[in-house]
Amino acid sequence: MTHLPAHLLNGYRNFMSGRFTTESKRYQTLAREGQSPSTLIIACCDSRAAPETIFDAGPGELFVVRNVANIIPPYTPDGSHHGTSAALEFAVQVLKVQDIVVMGHGRCGGIGAALNPSAQPLSPGDFIGKWMSMLAPAAEAIAGNGLLTQAERQTTLERISIRYQLANLRTFPCVKILEEKGRLRLHGAWFDISTGELWVMDPKSGDFERPSLD
Amino acid sequence: MTHLPAHLLNGYRNFMSGRFTTESKRYQTLAREGQSPSTLIIACCDSRAAPETIFDAGPGELFVVRNVANIIPPYTPDGSHHGTSAALEFAVQVLKVQDIVVMGHGRCGGIGAALNPSAQPLSPGDFIGKWMSMLAPAAEAIAGNGLLTQAERQTTLERISIRYQLANLRTFPCVKILEEKGRLRLHGAWFDISTGELWVMDPKSGDFERPSLD
Amino acid sequence: MTHLPAHLLNGYRNFMSGRFTTESKRYQTLAREGQSPSTLIIACCDSRAAPETIFDAGPGELFVVRNVANIIPPYTPDGSHHGTSAALEFAVQVLKVQDIVVMGHGRCGGIGAALNPSAQPLSPGDFIGKWMSMLAPAAEAIAGNGLLTQAERQTTLERISIRYQLANLRTFPCVKILEEKGRLRLHGAWFDISTGELWVMDPKSGDFERPSLD
Amino acid sequence: MTHLPAHLLNGYRNFMSGRFTTESKRYQTLAREGQSPSTLIIACCDSRAAPETIFDAGPGELFVVRNVANIIPPYTPDGSHHGTSAALEFAVQVLKVQDIVVMGHGRCGGIGAALNPSAQPLSPGDFIGKWMSMLAPAAEAIAGNGLLTQAERQTTLERISIRYQLANLRTFPCVKILEEKGRLRLHGAWFDISTGELWVMDPKSGDFERPSLD
Repeated sequence: MTHLPAHLLNGYRNFMSGRFTTESKRYQTLAREGQSPSTLIIACCDSRAAPETIFDAGPGELFVVRNVANIIPPYTPDGSHHGTSAALEFAVQVLKVQDIVVMGHGRCGGIGAALNPSAQPLSPGDFIGKWMSMLAPAAEAIAGNGLLTQAERQTTLERISIRYQLANLRTFPCVKILEEKGRLRLHGAWFDISTGELWVMDPKSGDFERPSLD
Repeated sequence: MTHLPAHLLNGYRNFMSGRFTTESKRYQTLAREGQSPSTLIIACCDSRAAPETIFDAGPGELFVVRNVANIIPPYTPDGSHHGTSAALEFAVQVLKVQDIVVMGHGRCGGIGAALNPSAQPLSPGDFIGKWMSMLAPAAEAIAGNGLLTQAERQTTLERISIRYQLANLRTFPCVKILEEKGRLRLHGAWFDISTGELWVMDPKSGDFERPSLD
Repeated sequence: MTHLPAHLLNGYRNFMSGRFTTESKRYQTLAREGQSPSTLIIACCDSRAAPETIFDAGPGELFVVRNVANIIPPYTPDGSHHGTSAALEFAVQVLKVQDIVVMGHGRCGGIGAALNPSAQPLSPGDFIGKWMSMLAPAAEAIAGNGLLTQAERQTTLERISIRYQLANLRTFPCVKILEEKGRLRLHGAWFDISTGELWVMDPKSGDFERPSLD
Repeated sequence: MTHLPAHLLNGYRNFMSGRFTTESKRYQTLAREGQSPSTLIIACCDSRAAPETIFDAGPGELFVVRNVANIIPPYTPDGSHHGTSAALEFAVQVLKVQDIVVMGHGRCGGIGAALNPSAQPLSPGDFIGKWMSMLAPAAEAIAGNGLLTQAERQTTLERISIRYQLANLRTFPCVKILEEKGRLRLHGAWFDISTGELWVMDPKSGDFERPSLD
């Protein structure tokens, strides 16, 4: 008797007869020698925007944090439990990743919640409300902009947020120092679920552009 | 000029010419109608244990939280920013998922850190130390057990932790209520990187067993 | 002795030996029977965004107004000389076009001038300043938005302006009445010079989307 | 779902697979470096007389104003919105074009309206009537000339009007000064839709002649 939903067991069966069979050597090596991914990706929980899928990534390739709206809370060494900060510290200090990608996406429910904060919290804890309140100043500035359509407000905040998160990353001393030494690179990216388009942030201007795939 | 590592651009090219081409209709539908995954998975950031890979999941199938050692901090409605709690609230209250899976894995670096807390924190913030301290009572009990080998201590704590996280999940009123009503099911699972084996927790005994795949 | 720049004479020679030779019958018919274009396009003077080029249009196909930043001043029956209003009236009342397209484009110099009005007018008449002042409220709202990059402010105002111009079109009684009767359709479009992408406005939401070309 | 007439989408498809493919480098350069056309053309909205077609012009070559009957209202620095004056100012002062061409054409509907002003305005605003009234003195003189056929009256006023517009251009101080310094040249041209013939104005006599194309 199993206790997993059938779609997970079916998928696991496919994995074992497919990818795992093909890559069993690689899995054994990764188990024996440990992981050494070169890239940390901070992505959203959204079921339509898994980094491994979008980047067709194999085992051992991506160290992945996923939270609602791919947020990095700013450096706050107050002794509390900071899950994203812990993952960042582990990736940078232990795994010594060379690249960090903050990857947002279109139609993000978290960004939508930031733009339309409900008067009525979802639960007494109001965790989503508190979490998305980290974007409140930008969200309020954009939410009140009647010149933009609803979809434009959403996309605009999604991209502003990526720039914010990159700034937050740089509040961590280890990130700032390694980036200045040229040993760590920070990137912003945005994925369009409908078209599959990937937009990459220009580090100088902050603009999002489609990368050449030639 | 792009600003993403070459392996990501190559992978994205594969995605666009492969999976996205095959499933573009599904992506369009998911964009238009929104996501409605039936399953929330709380997994580790580890590059060797991506849920979408292990469960061969398609777009829209899994809502995924990933933090170091797949931990769910207990319900703490204190107004702080709780990323995992926010994702849990969103999955249960907004998306109304029917299944939650806590998925651990072997050779977990976070669990290793809990068993061998370094005297010297990785950074002044010591985020990993604080994050893994949530497992401190169990870790201390196991770490001092000279009857177990080091590898056994590691696997044992990985599995104890999954039972802890399931207990923590039930400290959230919405989870507890919906589970009692039969509208939400909680599961534990553990993935062996070396062999590809998936072990599923028996909800009654807490034991981990290999599911039948016939 | 001619009095035209050489590039124009060379181009005209190409036209005569090429397109005109191929389409001389069509030109003769158009001369004899008069023009009956089904579409009015209001476009920018910009040398990179000619409607006939972008829509590969033949003779007789498009009635085209071009002014700086493709603006339609609102209906003002004050007895002054209104060039764009005159063209609109001619297209709708005499030619009875069925479609009107307001076509903006990226990197528009007029929009740039609206975002960065110079303290020093270009000439004592300050015609550009006065012309672009029709967008002043929107331009001021966007120009002060420090959350957006310069390129994002530009694109945002280009698209907001297209929605404004469509609203201005509907201040003309003949446009409003014929649209309500279903005999005239209004469209917004935006052309990206760099990529060649055409974005078309959704008439309900005001969002810009890429049309399917399948 | 698109919202553009099918003939435009078809034409755009041709553009993308044809000209844009061939000239994508040029478009990218024009986007990056901005436009620098050497020539301003003031032409009519008529669907049969697009300057880019007649001069086989590529992207970035012609800055184009199009209004009914290719009219330039005389310099009037009164603070009103003057679209054609704004485009002229932009072309001369910002883009620093070297040549300005006023291009009329045969069978012009605007000129026809000037010759036969309707007692009944096309709309309460009577925009066409007001716009063409700028040609009223010449139109009245010609309309009453019983020695000319109707077609001759039409062609005659089309050409007289081009000479008028060149005079109006010179009422703009910037045009007059730059022409006197030899840094700006003014030209008149007239296109015959039926035969494809281009006639160029002799700047001294004002006569229209066919240029040598050898």
